[in-house]
Amino acid sequence: MDASSLSRIGLAGLAVMGQNLALNIAEKGFPISVYNRTASKVDETLSRAQSEGPFSLTGQYSPRDFVLSIQRPRSIIILVKAGNPVDQTISALTEFMEPGDTIIDGGNEWYQNTERRIQQVADKGILYLGMGVSGGEEGARNGPSLMPGGSFEAYKNIESVLKSVAAQVDDGPCVTYIGEGGSGNFVKMVHNGIEYGDMQLISEAYDVLKNVGGLSNNELAEIFGEWNRGELESFLVEITSDIFKVKDSLVDGDLVDKILDKTGMKGTGKWTVQQAAELSIAAPTIAASLDCRYLSGLKEERESAAEILKEAGLEEEVGSVKSGVDKKRLIDDVRKALYASKICSYAQGMNLLRAKSVEKGWDLNFGELARIWKGGCIIRAVFLDRIKKAYQRNPNLASLVVDPEFAREMVQRQAAWRRVVGLAISAGISTPGMCASLAYFDTYRRARLPANLVQAQRDLFGAHTYERTDRPGAFHTEWTKLARKS
Amino acid sequence: MDASSLSRIGLAGLAVMGQNLALNIAEKGFPISVYNRTASKVDETLSRAQSEGPFSLTGQYSPRDFVLSIQRPRSIIILVKAGNPVDQTISALTEFMEPGDTIIDGGNEWYQNTERRIQQVADKGILYLGMGVSGGEEGARNGPSLMPGGSFEAYKNIESVLKSVAAQVDDGPCVTYIGEGGSGNFVKMVHNGIEYGDMQLISEAYDVLKNVGGLSNNELAEIFGEWNRGELESFLVEITSDIFKVKDSLVDGDLVDKILDKTGMKGTGKWTVQQAAELSIAAPTIAASLDCRYLSGLKEERESAAEILKEAGLEEEVGSVKSGVDKKRLIDDVRKALYASKICSYAQGMNLLRAKSVEKGWDLNFGELARIWKGGCIIRAVFLDRIKKAYQRNPNLASLVVDPEFAREMVQRQAAWRRVVGLAISAGISTPGMCASLAYFDTYRRARLPANLVQAQRDLFGAHTYERTDRPGAFHTEWTKLARKS
Repeated sequence: MDASSLSRIGLAGLAVMGQNLALNIAEKGFPISVYNRTASKVDETLSRAQSEGPFSLTGQYSPRDFVLSIQRPRSIIILVKAGNPVDQTISALTEFMEPGDTIIDGGNEWYQNTERRIQQVADKGILYLGMGVSGGEEGARNGPSLMPGGSFEAYKNIESVLKSVAAQVDDGPCVTYIGEGGSGNFVKMVHNGIEYGDMQLISEAYDVLKNVGGLSNNELAEIFGEWNRGELESFLVEITSDIFKVKDSLVDGDLVDKILDKTGMKGTGKWTVQQAAELSIAAPTIAASLDCRYLSGLKEERESAAEILKEAGLEEEVGSVKSGVDKKRLIDDVRKALYASKICSYAQGMNLLRAKSVEKGWDLNFGELARIWKGGCIIRAVFLDRIKKAYQRNPNLASLVVDPEFAREMVQRQAAWRRVVGLAISAGISTPGMCASLAYFDTYRRARLPANLVQAQRDLFGAHTYERTDRPGAFHTEWTKLARKS
Repeated sequence: MDASSLSRIGLAGLAVMGQNLALNIAEKGFPISVYNRTASKVDETLSRAQSEGPFSLTGQYSPRDFVLSIQRPRSIIILVKAGNPVDQTISALTEFMEPGDTIIDGGNEWYQNTERRIQQVADKGILYLGMGVSGGEEGARNGPSLMPGGSFEAYKNIESVLKSVAAQVDDGPCVTYIGEGGSGNFVKMVHNGIEYGDMQLISEAYDVLKNVGGLSNNELAEIFGEWNRGELESFLVEITSDIFKVKDSLVDGDLVDKILDKTGMKGTGKWTVQQAAELSIAAPTIAASLDCRYLSGLKEERESAAEILKEAGLEEEVGSVKSGVDKKRLIDDVRKALYASKICSYAQGMNLLRAKSVEKGWDLNFGELARIWKGGCIIRAVFLDRIKKAYQRNPNLASLVVDPEFAREMVQRQAAWRRVVGLAISAGISTPGMCASLAYFDTYRRARLPANLVQAQRDLFGAHTYERTDRPGAFHTEWTKLARKS
């Protein structure tokens, strides 16, 4: 092959995400080679390139031909299942790759696996990027949010490609160089944790509006549509409005009512919660969303618990609309509660990122992260522009809730927020995410917590010592002796 | 040395816990050899054995002399810092140990480290136990709760010793063979997670009674004392009452008010939360207690947040006693809220243990675990006898909250529980643990959750498919297309 017929870039792994991203790249004018172990996927992609294009997309059927069809220094994106398949793909491809070439893993990979692979391929002089890709299948095809981390040189080699294929928002394409090592994967992981939180909070708003407020699906579609024209404007609120409009095609009624209430999940939410614990960061809203997925899975246990507790005398409050609820005010309150809860959830996610950035020396730019999430990805929202600005105002912001603008918004919404959570609690509706956000807010904003008692207990039974508010030093007291002599 | 002068058992690592446990063993009539790398600790222990005894306790100053002074098959307890020091001690001692001898690690060790060491010493024919020891310094001296896991043969070798030194309750000594591998450490880890939860819930009760109810320290001492004569009777409630009685020796007033509200921690609470996530078990109350320790550590940030949010218009509700609160009823409500919240926290811990038991094939006996926690350890409480009985009634109990007796208690207390949490929320007092327990209860007992919406969202943006309530199978819908054409 002469140089002019070589592709600008390669992509291996042609499940739907891979196909879509390859077509997106080709559509932007970058000749691309594609490869998949199962040849039919290559044919499928070629035929899509014809029908959706035609685009300059070359199908390859062996790792060798694939690698050699790409111009040097080669950039090869792989989109296969995280874990072993990534290692296998790397091993198959690097056999034919040369020093200066780059592997870009676009999967939801555990950041430490990326760091291990960076070391591994470095022996051959090969560069590596772990790149978070968000936006699902639709985003991959039409413009995802991209979070590449690892070799800066490798990033520069494909920066022009990534900037073209990423989602475009008012202040640029939704891609930026995240940082060294596994930072791209880590940022994507936290993005997913925040996404879990957003989805949980929206489902709680739905639950309260439906089961306390008595709103119909039609009304819910309308309310979420209205919310999507205000401060809550976001992809997830928009699609929620859509979901309530869909009729069931099998039986009479709305489809949403027929969906089984068991939620699946992937590993990123779990990792987020485990990393938060590892780094001593409170992330209760994200954790609550994960817990709800776990508990949703116990459908049979829940049905049986409902029965047993009813037999034990529990009145059936759930599902019965509270009389005397002012619907209009409830809707307004829930909107405010959702927004305030969301701010706390994002504050948790950003603080987790900061803790990791400090630990690893990644020097993450939080304003930039908020910016590249403004488009393409699942959590895209107008609100992220405000987060970007908060970090631009103060890159060392301790927490989003103390940014002057967000602080004012929290204060304006807190009465409504407390009303919603209080009403849900008295109605027996669980709002674990909103509760967790509120408890987080009320804990973080208190100069004095009852942790003094916990310290006294620890000193009493474990001689762990304690500090005092009025003088420096570590103190120990013989509590029991002193208490019982008095 | 002739056989008759050999010790029954050995103990290496003579910090306070080690000294106390050695003296406890000696006091129960088992001749013991002790050893510590720093010789002065050996002398200290010898002198305590004289003054508190005299007991049959032999000090040794080299690993070799120490090991050889113990009768075969040798059982040697080590009580050194978890991690590397354990490996170093094992390596120093096993050099002189023989096949059939046993190492018993009594530290708060990560269970996988124990499983690694079991393999490691097995090469030399040496047996191994990872033994959780709870009860702090006082428990070690007078009767701890012991959780030995690993080699059953090794357990049988020292069963008589452990049964004598453990705390004694109405239904036997607080020790049982836990299971294979690292099960003893794992059970101790979850015990500590539960302990974190208990301490958090008590501190929230204190916070509400003080800052909503306006109770003085004298009143709090009295109330906790009274609670310790009822359903909440437990070590932690008892010592809480004591703590409020202690006067400050440096300035006028009560000592508890002068303690800095920053809580320290060890690794076991963190591990509990991480393992819960790993095993898909919701443990929000334990997680909330950990989060509060993290947030308590951010004292300066909290002080600054309080200031900023005040400037942004937040009224200062915290610390001002609510007018119109019926003190007597509040006290009664808080007691019920604390009890109900506690049941949920224990349900989480037990379910975490069950998930791990299934994963590892440990075949844990939950009734026995509750029984050995009835004495000696930090969470010891009358209430654990009720947990023991619940698991005796039904060893496959899905959750404590569906045991008929606990279910009835939950139902009886739920109105009070909701009032307390609601009141705290409206007062701006955070009760993250009580909130988390209540949300857990209200999620677990609901036959239908709003997780159907989350599944619809996931299907819409990720084609993850969903199940239906009315027929089997996996379904996918083109939500956006259908919504927008209607």
